Amino acid sequence: MKPKALLFDVFGTVVNWRSGLIRDLQTHFTRYPSRLDPAIVADAWRAEYQPSMTPIRDGTRPFTKLDVLHRENLLKIGADLQFDLGTDADTDWLVQAWHRLPAWPDSVSGINTLKESTICASQSNGHIALSVNLARYNGFSWDAILGSEVVGTYKPAPRSYIGACDALGLSPNECMMVAAHNADLAAARQCGLQTAFIQRPTEYGPNQTTDLKAEDNWSIVARDLLDLVAHLT
Amino acid sequence: MKPKALLFDVFGTVVNWRSGLIRDLQTHFTRYPSRLDPAIVADAWRAEYQPSMTPIRDGTRPFTKLDVLHRENLLKIGADLQFDLGTDADTDWLVQAWHRLPAWPDSVSGINTLKESTICASQSNGHIALSVNLARYNGFSWDAILGSEVVGTYKPAPRSYIGACDALGLSPNECMMVAAHNADLAAARQCGLQTAFIQRPTEYGPNQTTDLKAEDNWSIVARDLLDLVAHLT
Repeated sequence: MKPKALLFDVFGTVVNWRSGLIRDLQTHFTRYPSRLDPAIVADAWRAEYQPSMTPIRDGTRPFTKLDVLHRENLLKIGADLQFDLGTDADTDWLVQAWHRLPAWPDSVSGINTLKESTICASQSNGHIALSVNLARYNGFSWDAILGSEVVGTYKPAPRSYIGACDALGLSPNECMMVAAHNADLAAARQCGLQTAFIQRPTEYGPNQTTDLKAEDNWSIVARDLLDLVAHLT
Repeated sequence: MKPKALLFDVFGTVVNWRSGLIRDLQTHFTRYPSRLDPAIVADAWRAEYQPSMTPIRDGTRPFTKLDVLHRENLLKIGADLQFDLGTDADTDWLVQAWHRLPAWPDSVSGINTLKESTICASQSNGHIALSVNLARYNGFSWDAILGSEVVGTYKPAPRSYIGACDALGLSPNECMMVAAHNADLAAARQCGLQTAFIQRPTEYGPNQTTDLKAEDNWSIVARDLLDLVAHLT
């Protein structure tokens, strides 16, 4: 059954968070010189991302937007790796790097084409402001932004997927989760959604070891979003 | 100050709910003949709209999506005016008329042009599914859908406007409420938003008596959304 809605993971699947963070950390280090490799800092920052959402997923911390978590995580790695975060405004500017991450080369064309025939929604852990800014920065737009605030929790909590389908007035099997991460798809399938795996073998840089390939028989396995267009038409 | 985001009222301001309801009631009456004028039925249905949201605004009823309220209101006027609603599926089809209301002639071009330079978000009492369907039916899309579910209440509750600005990460004075209704704008101004009045003198049909003109010194008064483009550029 052709899905009525595609729910997109964003960080890694639609945008290249690593190159965006490296770019803005490089700029920061021209103002506040450091011997650190910006790629090491980007990876350290991203490594704090999943653990920082755990208390929200398990209900021990109230829902908190990613801007707040990204800032807390940045302060932590600044202290751990001992680099100068500059003024409060400089720190805010770095946190906002997550609002201006570049799309993968196929993403804008892929989403705009898919949107012609199918509802395309962001099902990211990014909050609404971040999701709007990422979309406008790159030149696409979503039919709806469904992650985090709308459902009040973070993936892979089941309520996140179920709540997103419900917000569209669709049943889970009418929706397809689109992600470059096997765990995200496994959680979505558990909730009854169709699944599309997108190969992003350099999301974590040249030495990526995880999510290099589909690890289950997902409904679709695609090289990129243009290949997903081909699979769905 | 030029607004960073435009928050649009939808029913009446962007779409012509009356002509859409009349069209679908006419179709319904070809299947279930009635002597009633579809325009009378449309107006009676719409007249139940505001009162049905009151218990949600004042907190005596939990948040309930418009599809449910529209269905309850339709059953009520069906009984009052004594017309045949047909099967459950026929009733659902009528309720879904609110998902396929036609845009005013200037709306699609206006929104698509405004979106090039400014965030354009739906700030409607319509829920996400309805808002997505209305946008796709007419051929535009929002940067974000902010009304009802995101804020958990209905306009003109202050939390509705404040919550929408907050979801975009903007302060109220960076946002402009765009509406054909003076009361909506008054409530938005009370929360600190800028205001744009759009003239829709036939929203309620040829004998409209309310909202024929701006009743306060709103930031902008525009003939339609293309005129709003001219005011903002």
